[in-house]
Amino acid sequence: MLADLALIGFGNVGRRFARLLDEQREQLQQKWDLTCRITGIATRRHGSSYNPDGIDAMAAATAVDAGGSLNGLDAVRSDARGQSNRHVIDQLARSPAPIRIVVETTTLDIAAGQPAIDHVRHALEATCDVVTANKGPAAFAYHELSSLARNQRRSFLFEGAVMDGVPIFNLVREAMPGVRILGFRGIVNSTTNHILTALEEGAAFGPALARMQEEGIAEADPSLDVDGWDAAAKTAALANVLLDARITPHDVEREGVGPGSATLAQIARKKGLRLRLVASAAAGAQPSVRLVELPADDPLAGLRGTSNALIFQTDMLGRVAVSQLDGGLTHTAYALLSDVIAIRRRLSSFV
Amino acid sequence: MLADLALIGFGNVGRRFARLLDEQREQLQQKWDLTCRITGIATRRHGSSYNPDGIDAMAAATAVDAGGSLNGLDAVRSDARGQSNRHVIDQLARSPAPIRIVVETTTLDIAAGQPAIDHVRHALEATCDVVTANKGPAAFAYHELSSLARNQRRSFLFEGAVMDGVPIFNLVREAMPGVRILGFRGIVNSTTNHILTALEEGAAFGPALARMQEEGIAEADPSLDVDGWDAAAKTAALANVLLDARITPHDVEREGVGPGSATLAQIARKKGLRLRLVASAAAGAQPSVRLVELPADDPLAGLRGTSNALIFQTDMLGRVAVSQLDGGLTHTAYALLSDVIAIRRRLSSFV
Repeated sequence: MLADLALIGFGNVGRRFARLLDEQREQLQQKWDLTCRITGIATRRHGSSYNPDGIDAMAAATAVDAGGSLNGLDAVRSDARGQSNRHVIDQLARSPAPIRIVVETTTLDIAAGQPAIDHVRHALEATCDVVTANKGPAAFAYHELSSLARNQRRSFLFEGAVMDGVPIFNLVREAMPGVRILGFRGIVNSTTNHILTALEEGAAFGPALARMQEEGIAEADPSLDVDGWDAAAKTAALANVLLDARITPHDVEREGVGPGSATLAQIARKKGLRLRLVASAAAGAQPSVRLVELPADDPLAGLRGTSNALIFQTDMLGRVAVSQLDGGLTHTAYALLSDVIAIRRRLSSFV
Repeated sequence: MLADLALIGFGNVGRRFARLLDEQREQLQQKWDLTCRITGIATRRHGSSYNPDGIDAMAAATAVDAGGSLNGLDAVRSDARGQSNRHVIDQLARSPAPIRIVVETTTLDIAAGQPAIDHVRHALEATCDVVTANKGPAAFAYHELSSLARNQRRSFLFEGAVMDGVPIFNLVREAMPGVRILGFRGIVNSTTNHILTALEEGAAFGPALARMQEEGIAEADPSLDVDGWDAAAKTAALANVLLDARITPHDVEREGVGPGSATLAQIARKKGLRLRLVASAAAGAQPSVRLVELPADDPLAGLRGTSNALIFQTDMLGRVAVSQLDGGLTHTAYALLSDVIAIRRRLSSFV
């Protein structure tokens, strides 16, 4: 079965996703009877393209890697250059392919989750499925967008929004049917956890942060991470989806990590405790991202470096924990791929 | 949609499952359009019953709780008393219900996985679906039984075989599509982990084991747990399913926990290490259950008491860990329920 894909955003994640699709081509075909064709790419600074017969996405990725523009890409037909995001989505909607997926990978806007929410809304209204690695849509507008998706009989999936490709939303929906999530607590931001681990070991804040930036884990502007906004957005998305909350990241009580955290981390260490930035929410409780001193035997206390983990409190299974012990770009790209496969599998119901 | 169920085995797990079905009746109906009716129960020491119109399973559970027999149960029709396991399965196979599920909860036989394997084989041959909490079938005969299930277009599911209802097999199959498992290591036996935790803290082996037996976590005959057989059976099941191995628990290099482990646990503790019974397997490596000294920051080292955890090494997601922090009878019963729901969801493909 043919799936036409339009990529809105073509940064590191979008380009890794395009390459992963290429690497997994045979397996997708054999295991899920799924052929993915990228017909549209829209970028903010490198132009845009749409070609109903398919774009050479490897060439496009190489061009953008080198700082070039898609507008000049030889393999792309000239009648389809320089499209806006909205226009690329509209063109995808006209594809005769049985599956049409908008793959949204723009960066998080913490003010209001835009323009990602508009992209998702427009794609669903145009009867395309949507997968996104952006936290914004689920953190700011989950109920509106999931209800729109239901009405349009399309999917709105965002596994990559929390813990990259390690299944969280898929886990609860597909693998724990009938289980009710009563609450959760976890460590969901890699940069701050790595910094706190380094501070405990005597490092200073500045160099610890700089190392995260060098390794490409923290952004050039790291404020979303260190101010706790990234964790707050993940907390809001988790609470909206799993606890049926109706909140935005601005409703999450929020604390961050800064130079002053070094003393706190060392004090905790001397008491045999570990200072961690813990995200939590539960029915009837204030969702929060807080610096907490954890006892050494807390399952979250042992998480070092860039590891992430979530502990779910459930009705029928007590506490269940899921941990991401490694991270990286491929993991986030896989999250998008797993959502694409989920869309294919749902469709087999209608064959 | 109506599902008729025959329970082969009606011990603690089987009875808790029957009650859980009753507790979840409305949710199953509303969320999955699924009505479960128990039409058969076969026990080893409390008689057996089959009633095509449904058995009053709550009354049956109460009767067996009190040491009584199903044969004398008023609510059960007299034409169907005293059936053998095989006969109960044959009767279920004649049910006109669109779903017919054999729910196997007999106890593990570590010599050859019998008679559970025969029950599963017979049920599949009779075109019933099978769910089981028994490790034997997947540990001794996974390839034969899963291939038989495929040929019969029926399901053979066993989520409860490892870590109770915490999704392991479902997680990999449903929530990590396309991910290849390269190996795993974990702590999968609650009794031995609890004993090792107690030994570290200075307890003696005998009292630590006795406490597990009092709490109903260890069996009256605890040898399957303490000799490492339970962990070896789980290792074989995981390797067969996730690594495409063709082994039995007898192919797993095996170590147990005994009075002599106390000294080892204390020695490890003095070195800042933790002694744990670790199950592991990987492509090309000898599957094993071994006492291992773990560094304190190993994600498995912090698992105390009856907690279980598995760390999967994967191709696209690095290391992913899943932990069961609480345990209990409801968790195992839920494993069976989640498999029943999985069968219902698969069927929606054919509506």
